[in-house]
Amino acid sequence: MQTLSVKLPERHYPIHIGPGLLARSDLLTPHIAGRQVMIVTNEAVAPHYLERLKAGLTDYTVAEVILPDGEATKTLASVERIWDALLAHGFNRRCTLIALGGGVIGDMTGFAAACYQRGVAFIQVPTTLLSQVDSSVGGKTGVNHPRGKNMIGAFWQPKVVINDTSVLATLPDRELSAGLAEVIKYGLIRDEAFLGWLESNMAGLRALDDEALTYAIRRSCEIKAEVVVLDETEQGIRAHLNLGHTFGHAIEAAMGYGNWLHGEAVGAGMVMAATLSHHFGDLDEQALHRVRDVIGQAGLPLHAPREMNSARFLELMRLDKKMLDERLRLVLLSALGQACINDDVDPATVIELIDNFPRA
Amino acid sequence: MQTLSVKLPERHYPIHIGPGLLARSDLLTPHIAGRQVMIVTNEAVAPHYLERLKAGLTDYTVAEVILPDGEATKTLASVERIWDALLAHGFNRRCTLIALGGGVIGDMTGFAAACYQRGVAFIQVPTTLLSQVDSSVGGKTGVNHPRGKNMIGAFWQPKVVINDTSVLATLPDRELSAGLAEVIKYGLIRDEAFLGWLESNMAGLRALDDEALTYAIRRSCEIKAEVVVLDETEQGIRAHLNLGHTFGHAIEAAMGYGNWLHGEAVGAGMVMAATLSHHFGDLDEQALHRVRDVIGQAGLPLHAPREMNSARFLELMRLDKKMLDERLRLVLLSALGQACINDDVDPATVIELIDNFPRA
Repeated sequence: MQTLSVKLPERHYPIHIGPGLLARSDLLTPHIAGRQVMIVTNEAVAPHYLERLKAGLTDYTVAEVILPDGEATKTLASVERIWDALLAHGFNRRCTLIALGGGVIGDMTGFAAACYQRGVAFIQVPTTLLSQVDSSVGGKTGVNHPRGKNMIGAFWQPKVVINDTSVLATLPDRELSAGLAEVIKYGLIRDEAFLGWLESNMAGLRALDDEALTYAIRRSCEIKAEVVVLDETEQGIRAHLNLGHTFGHAIEAAMGYGNWLHGEAVGAGMVMAATLSHHFGDLDEQALHRVRDVIGQAGLPLHAPREMNSARFLELMRLDKKMLDERLRLVLLSALGQACINDDVDPATVIELIDNFPRA
Repeated sequence: MQTLSVKLPERHYPIHIGPGLLARSDLLTPHIAGRQVMIVTNEAVAPHYLERLKAGLTDYTVAEVILPDGEATKTLASVERIWDALLAHGFNRRCTLIALGGGVIGDMTGFAAACYQRGVAFIQVPTTLLSQVDSSVGGKTGVNHPRGKNMIGAFWQPKVVINDTSVLATLPDRELSAGLAEVIKYGLIRDEAFLGWLESNMAGLRALDDEALTYAIRRSCEIKAEVVVLDETEQGIRAHLNLGHTFGHAIEAAMGYGNWLHGEAVGAGMVMAATLSHHFGDLDEQALHRVRDVIGQAGLPLHAPREMNSARFLELMRLDKKMLDERLRLVLLSALGQACINDDVDPATVIELIDNFPRA
């Protein structure tokens, strides 16, 4: 097991990473306020891991909410189900909520905790690679609104994060690859040595080698924590975390959320960003080849959807809230392991890139 | 006009108090982030004051949500109407919400601001005496749930509070008196000199003398700010702000919210708490008489509802979340201008008090 401490202005919290941690209630109980615990999970995760988690909590009053799986569940109505259950069980302001699931469960449970009796304790037990590397740090919680993703939410920090690499055994391969897209992103934006390590260890990661997973998750969380601390107000380098995401969001929006997984769209989006960086002379041919290669090795797409022409891409990219009006604002690479922001990209250049980009 | 600065850990915000401030857009605009302003108000307040407020905001994109009046409106569904309107108008994370109304509007608007795109700017323009002295300080926002009041919410601080004494001209007399209950409370718990000032100036306050109102609101906000700063975690003396409230909440719950106004129930509750303090030997006969007299002068009830016997009181007081299990925990007075907490009150003593307390 490895432990990383995330430093907040007022306190620190630990992220524990390693195999078999779900059974380690000694990691959990020091962070449980009061005697009342509400576990929030979903129908895909509960059959595998709910009882294992509950087994360590026999000293507490434990209740649970089991929601449907999927992004369509990430609504205010689901969070109301959590609040209803908390009140039906008479849970007070010293209760603790545990999120057992992927990013959707983590985001909703964190938001429910942030607003129940004006804020109660919250613990993350992420069960997908994506949520282990992405939701462990940053404190973003919330739900979608029919008019936009993540429009309603709060910043709310967990007391502890338990990243059990063993639970990834039940994760579908496609979702493992999608999580690897974000892992690769951390190497690309900030750590060329980590990118090199990923190139050497991709097979082990995809074979669920615990040691490799533990290191990859730890380094990803470390890099995210560095970036978030450097830029708490989200004005500057935190934007680097969006490498590939403006292209990726366009793909997700065009294809329908869930048809292309978030990580798959980001994977293709990072290849597009790297290609543009090559066009601007910041990445040489060999570096671009390394980006394509590591993303391909992770099992991610190196093409854009056949259905999307450059006009459709541009239209959806302009809707992205991170973009300015006339020129395009994109996160690119100034080198491998070093992201930069170009807020003056000529749309014609992007159109040319997309027109020449491979299709499935 | 008087201005009070409320000191938060990370920043200060001003409370402006005086007549005619609604027309003073120069007090408002320095605190408006961005160019998009959403005014949230209700059907009772809008006809009187909405246009006056909007007249000073011609340089901004202004939208409005007008909700029904009353505590029954204080639901998550109402807050969703605010979020829907914000998104329908394309408001971004640099928008500003203005609450124009009483405590219900302030609590809901603050909560809507706390959670819209994970937090946007918020300005309080309270239009009742109660909300001017109570909601200006403390940052509590939220809504009711069918199973309990204020169960869903957040701490979210305003950028500025505009307490215009002129708007109290359209406030019904009963609501003015209800607001005075909280003003008297601040004298009773922390400032005997202010209590004496209230005894001398009650007629002027009820006649809406602007100078008297400005001073009373200012001193109330000051005292609340002192108490909140001394006890940010709500473990100790912040409980003093609940003088009369445990009895009062029982009256409100038994009689149906709105039949007894909150301030009316708190007024009677403070007389009960003072009577108990007299029983324990902390207030002499003359001091108890002064408490009864000033509350009566404010136009507040000095009796309990005929319908409530001591058993009903005790049953409802035990439900109050601020109480411990066996013995009763009550805020009492150790002297005029000095509150104390007694967490070992014998229920038999309370029963005797209630049995002998005057009924309407």
